[in-house]
Amino acid sequence: MRKHRTLSLIASLAALAPGRSAPPLTGQLLGFNPETAKVEQDWEARFRAIPDAKRVHDNMLHLAAHPHHVGSDYQRQNAEWLVARYKEWGWDAHIERFDVLFPTPKERVLELVAPSKYVAKLDETPLPEDPYTHEKTTQLPGYNIYSADGDVTAPLVYVNNGMPADYEILERHNISVSGAIVISRYGGGWRGLKPKLAAEHGAVDCIIYSDPADDGYGQDEVLPKGPMRPPDGIQRGSVADTTLYPGDPLTPGVGSVPGAKRLKISEAQTIMKIPVLPIGYGDAKPLLAALSGPVVPAEWRGGLPLTYHFGPGPAKVHLKLVFDWGQKPVLDVIATMKGSEEPDVWIVRGNHYDGWVNGADDPISGQSALLEEARALGELAKQGWRPKRTLIYTAWDGEEPGLIGSTEWAETHAEDLSQKAALYLNSDENGRGFFGAGGSHELEQMVNDVTKEIIDPETKVTVWKRQQASLVVRGGRRAGGTPNQDVLTQNTLPIEAIGSGSDFATFLDHLGIASLSIGYGGEDRGGTYHSAYDTPWFTDHFGDKEEVYGPILAQTAGILVMRFASADVLPYDFTAMARTLKQYDHELKELVKSLQKDAETRKRNLEMNLYPLTDDPRQGLEAPTSLVPPPDMNFSSLDEAIASLEKAAAHFNAARPAMETLSPDQRKALNAELTTVDRKLLGDQGLPRRPWVRNLIYAPGVYAGYGVKTLPGVREALEQGRFPEATEQLGIVDKAINDEAAYIEKIIGTFGISN
Amino acid sequence: MRKHRTLSLIASLAALAPGRSAPPLTGQLLGFNPETAKVEQDWEARFRAIPDAKRVHDNMLHLAAHPHHVGSDYQRQNAEWLVARYKEWGWDAHIERFDVLFPTPKERVLELVAPSKYVAKLDETPLPEDPYTHEKTTQLPGYNIYSADGDVTAPLVYVNNGMPADYEILERHNISVSGAIVISRYGGGWRGLKPKLAAEHGAVDCIIYSDPADDGYGQDEVLPKGPMRPPDGIQRGSVADTTLYPGDPLTPGVGSVPGAKRLKISEAQTIMKIPVLPIGYGDAKPLLAALSGPVVPAEWRGGLPLTYHFGPGPAKVHLKLVFDWGQKPVLDVIATMKGSEEPDVWIVRGNHYDGWVNGADDPISGQSALLEEARALGELAKQGWRPKRTLIYTAWDGEEPGLIGSTEWAETHAEDLSQKAALYLNSDENGRGFFGAGGSHELEQMVNDVTKEIIDPETKVTVWKRQQASLVVRGGRRAGGTPNQDVLTQNTLPIEAIGSGSDFATFLDHLGIASLSIGYGGEDRGGTYHSAYDTPWFTDHFGDKEEVYGPILAQTAGILVMRFASADVLPYDFTAMARTLKQYDHELKELVKSLQKDAETRKRNLEMNLYPLTDDPRQGLEAPTSLVPPPDMNFSSLDEAIASLEKAAAHFNAARPAMETLSPDQRKALNAELTTVDRKLLGDQGLPRRPWVRNLIYAPGVYAGYGVKTLPGVREALEQGRFPEATEQLGIVDKAINDEAAYIEKIIGTFGISN
Repeated sequence: MRKHRTLSLIASLAALAPGRSAPPLTGQLLGFNPETAKVEQDWEARFRAIPDAKRVHDNMLHLAAHPHHVGSDYQRQNAEWLVARYKEWGWDAHIERFDVLFPTPKERVLELVAPSKYVAKLDETPLPEDPYTHEKTTQLPGYNIYSADGDVTAPLVYVNNGMPADYEILERHNISVSGAIVISRYGGGWRGLKPKLAAEHGAVDCIIYSDPADDGYGQDEVLPKGPMRPPDGIQRGSVADTTLYPGDPLTPGVGSVPGAKRLKISEAQTIMKIPVLPIGYGDAKPLLAALSGPVVPAEWRGGLPLTYHFGPGPAKVHLKLVFDWGQKPVLDVIATMKGSEEPDVWIVRGNHYDGWVNGADDPISGQSALLEEARALGELAKQGWRPKRTLIYTAWDGEEPGLIGSTEWAETHAEDLSQKAALYLNSDENGRGFFGAGGSHELEQMVNDVTKEIIDPETKVTVWKRQQASLVVRGGRRAGGTPNQDVLTQNTLPIEAIGSGSDFATFLDHLGIASLSIGYGGEDRGGTYHSAYDTPWFTDHFGDKEEVYGPILAQTAGILVMRFASADVLPYDFTAMARTLKQYDHELKELVKSLQKDAETRKRNLEMNLYPLTDDPRQGLEAPTSLVPPPDMNFSSLDEAIASLEKAAAHFNAARPAMETLSPDQRKALNAELTTVDRKLLGDQGLPRRPWVRNLIYAPGVYAGYGVKTLPGVREALEQGRFPEATEQLGIVDKAINDEAAYIEKIIGTFGISN
Repeated sequence: MRKHRTLSLIASLAALAPGRSAPPLTGQLLGFNPETAKVEQDWEARFRAIPDAKRVHDNMLHLAAHPHHVGSDYQRQNAEWLVARYKEWGWDAHIERFDVLFPTPKERVLELVAPSKYVAKLDETPLPEDPYTHEKTTQLPGYNIYSADGDVTAPLVYVNNGMPADYEILERHNISVSGAIVISRYGGGWRGLKPKLAAEHGAVDCIIYSDPADDGYGQDEVLPKGPMRPPDGIQRGSVADTTLYPGDPLTPGVGSVPGAKRLKISEAQTIMKIPVLPIGYGDAKPLLAALSGPVVPAEWRGGLPLTYHFGPGPAKVHLKLVFDWGQKPVLDVIATMKGSEEPDVWIVRGNHYDGWVNGADDPISGQSALLEEARALGELAKQGWRPKRTLIYTAWDGEEPGLIGSTEWAETHAEDLSQKAALYLNSDENGRGFFGAGGSHELEQMVNDVTKEIIDPETKVTVWKRQQASLVVRGGRRAGGTPNQDVLTQNTLPIEAIGSGSDFATFLDHLGIASLSIGYGGEDRGGTYHSAYDTPWFTDHFGDKEEVYGPILAQTAGILVMRFASADVLPYDFTAMARTLKQYDHELKELVKSLQKDAETRKRNLEMNLYPLTDDPRQGLEAPTSLVPPPDMNFSSLDEAIASLEKAAAHFNAARPAMETLSPDQRKALNAELTTVDRKLLGDQGLPRRPWVRNLIYAPGVYAGYGVKTLPGVREALEQGRFPEATEQLGIVDKAINDEAAYIEKIIGTFGISN
């Protein structure tokens, strides 16, 4: 029975996909006419044959051979090596340098001083098996960059993930973190929120540890036996508040070029106000074991063999952190291939190349695939191919401390980018498994078109088909999601919204450039994130060691770039944008209702004294505080704005045949207009309290960190109880969407292509 | 703000409940007329004043002073002490003895023999702090009674909870337990299902361990610092398959009296076919650490500081178990207070008194409250009170090995009970917290009436109000349920359905006697269940040390008994039964739909090859097998039967005023008829493959163990894919419900009391 099914599967897969070549196209290519589509497809077929796994692997071995963080000697060597490669492949390439604030630790002391003594190791022991882990002298130690300096001794409080909901629970238990050092586990939200919220609640220091339940032995065997984080493993990472602005904390909004206006360190809003230190669970265990007080709720418990208590105390901790607050060079590698017809329309493609230590996975798994993609395009150019539009391929430095390389470059070239950039396409880590994409929704159709042509190396169906299967069976790339049956009847799979956390942030959030972030993953587990154990040895033992997904990422991103570079008309499809905005609109309406309902339920429960009746009196809990409900909100103008956009999107699609009749010059003018279409979605004032973040559709959440909030002005105002602001922001976003719709209609009118 | 709310709470509570006395009654008492209600209320008020916490505590200290399992010397002493107490309080009392199969271990060996060596301790180290734990010579060691003998060495496989869903996951991973020893953690279902299912899948042995995530350090500090299970702690317990029949495995259906027909041990269906041994997590850790093979899914992971793998092997285990298969006496204590007017209507009240070791909590927390209730009724009798009907108060022996004392007694007196028993009221463990009740739904109204008159000692509102609050805020007694807002607009809180797991089983499942099981709990945590650490020292340090809930249970159960003993007409309300059956009917309809939908989804996923597309090919998973959908089923005859019952219930309620006009003799005859009403809900043939279980409404689930399945014939046939049987069973239950309705209508007709 089983065997039979397996055989029939192979047979049906074979029918679907003879060999590894893509299935024949059935429809027209978006943005092309039948003739140009034919030419494009021929070039794409040639392109697809080029990327080579062995070369991707060799790129990885080279780039991750030594620690290569910002300012390190090997990062400089990598930059030069990258420039040489690009040149070898026929690209123009150079290094663009920014000097930025890059603090490094001078002193790190963490010790338990009561009720017993323990001095934290704060060190990642090299593995005998992994030669890369022995390069101690050039490794950056475990720290959170942009932590404050400090030297404090105080009682310890455990705050779980240290997110807003966790503080509500602390409050119910009458536990204050004021004057305390909090210890939080990684997870549940962006790391920088942990110290930020701790400081807002009066804590004087924040320790962040990696719990073994999350990426240690709770998930799989730890290194060197398995891929998970050993007790020593430390997750480095930035705690700069990139929800305000990313990049050099001293140069918000402008490039860190010589002569740029720089803030004093004390003026930089994004630098953390309290000291923060990341530690491994080996060091965390004695600290947590020394806590007393009530036992934490079930969701707060981790994988250490002890009972998790809140504290405060009797554990008392001494934490001393002293940093060298010097500047370091950030070396972006910029490679260009000039467009033959519309050189002033830019397609920007990026992946960072700085790692916290060796960074074989983060970011080199993505960067080495991107390089192979660039080589393939170089090959193609040697065979006679020319992009109509200008390609800008980048290797960003300084992503890890806070998206610095991409931000400083984008801020430096903001005027050009605002005029010229039609697409920013990002990648970062890459691995075995499922395709995933997030970004601006006018790109959704194109992403679907392309992924329907890429063959998954493991299952031999298209990566689109495999992505669809993952949504249906397990709700997404990572196991444990809610199965989504709807996608079975849809021809397009949704792309996710994105906020921050990789180099697309400035392009999307600040400049309003149509952006995408793509990659493969979801199969191999690992616990080496931002540690000294993320090395080529690890990849060769626990990762995509044959690099089968490197060429696949190169194919996917490369074809997206080629389509954008060569389409007769830039291949945006605004219907997906309108459809997605409708969904966000619906979510906001539901949010108002659910906030009203929650407030009503809380009010009733308080009035009926239900909390004292259900809480164990021995535990002395406080009842939760009352909630302020939002007033009813009128979303009709948002509904109407989205309806206008929907109409404009339909008009635009209907006008496609007419676009074919335009003269080359008219089409060039049309594309120039189209390039800037998304700038209409920027707010002049930015979002409240963070003027740098101007995108009114997608933004990193103030309490989500990397995570996105869509229609953020309205949504966050509602979530955070600022109801007049929600109404005001609703007006702003209505106008932006109307402007976008009007701009599209104007283009159609200008070129006389209405149907 | 907070302070203010606390003050206003106190004020409003004071308004509700001046002092500790009950609020005045607003309505009439069910089954009483205004005059008899007044008399009843006066006696109840006197009764409520009697139960005394100190006496409950003294009962506990006496009964749990030494190990007192079946056949032990101290259990004999307890039996005699109980008889003496009852006599002292004015009751008739005697011991009723049954000689039953009660195997005890002669040899227990568990050792890891490869890849390393470890000999399991299998012993619970005494605590220096707890003198009770030192009585090693009289303690029963850790074992699962009715395990098979055996001596096997085989590879080990970890099966999580060892439930059906777990075997589906093993199957997907291509892991067979055939010829293996399985290790399962406690939880997820009744312990006896673990070896039963293991044996069905070909395993040769079963080890069951207590994972620290479930009742060890994952929940709170372990003994002696906190209340949770220490590494040595072993959960004893029966693995006799009581879903077939409880009681002495050798005498199904009849009392184990001298001369009773006894099966050979080899013929007894309820004795486990393979050896089973319970162990602590101290002994489990080296075994689990020695397992290899794939990593288990997230839900399978426990709290040990290691990576949980499936196996099989390389861990190889030697398990040897040899039992003494002798008989032991089971000593039920039976106390009676004869009814003054209807002595042949019986109100039976029970709680077991045998423990696995000292059993201070299980069962003595309940038994010592029951004793105080019996003393109070004795006091009341001395003051002139007389129950109209006969009270039978029992202390069951042999509950732990398989509800033996209650089952053998009920089987011995089956004929009398079938004719005379109007109520069986059970309790078992008791503790601080919320009231909980389960049982026959014609008792729901009475339970609500009574709990609206009992004042909660911790919050000073009625226990009904507190139970309601717990349902609204946290979905029930245990934290983590789904809040149920509906109960805010209802005057009655639902009682749960019950299946097995305590002494009500034979009364309810086999004899069809209206049954209830009640108790308080949900606040104090403990990890001493069925271990040598369940002692008076534990209660005095971590339990309800002031025994504030002992008198409350005595009040609650005592008043339920008094109402049933003295009502003019037995206080059943069939409307709740009809309402509840409607809900079960709805559940069955939904079950058919969801089984159809699941099968359809699975079929589609298999046809589309979605599993191979989503599973990591490196893991070599098998696709899940296809599911057979149930055909559409016609529930109209069940709908109609329930509608008839609903009508009859309404007629019965409408006839209440007319019942008052009956002569005493007529009322006596009416009550005699009413007493047997629920026997209509028994099936002559019992449930398929288990003729002993005759209740067609409530039964322990074959794959639920203690847990209930309602309308079990239909529901289990559907769940287990026997669809013709489901249809057949539907006919049987339709008829029973129609018979019940007709019987109620007949009573109304017979006594000419229709409205």
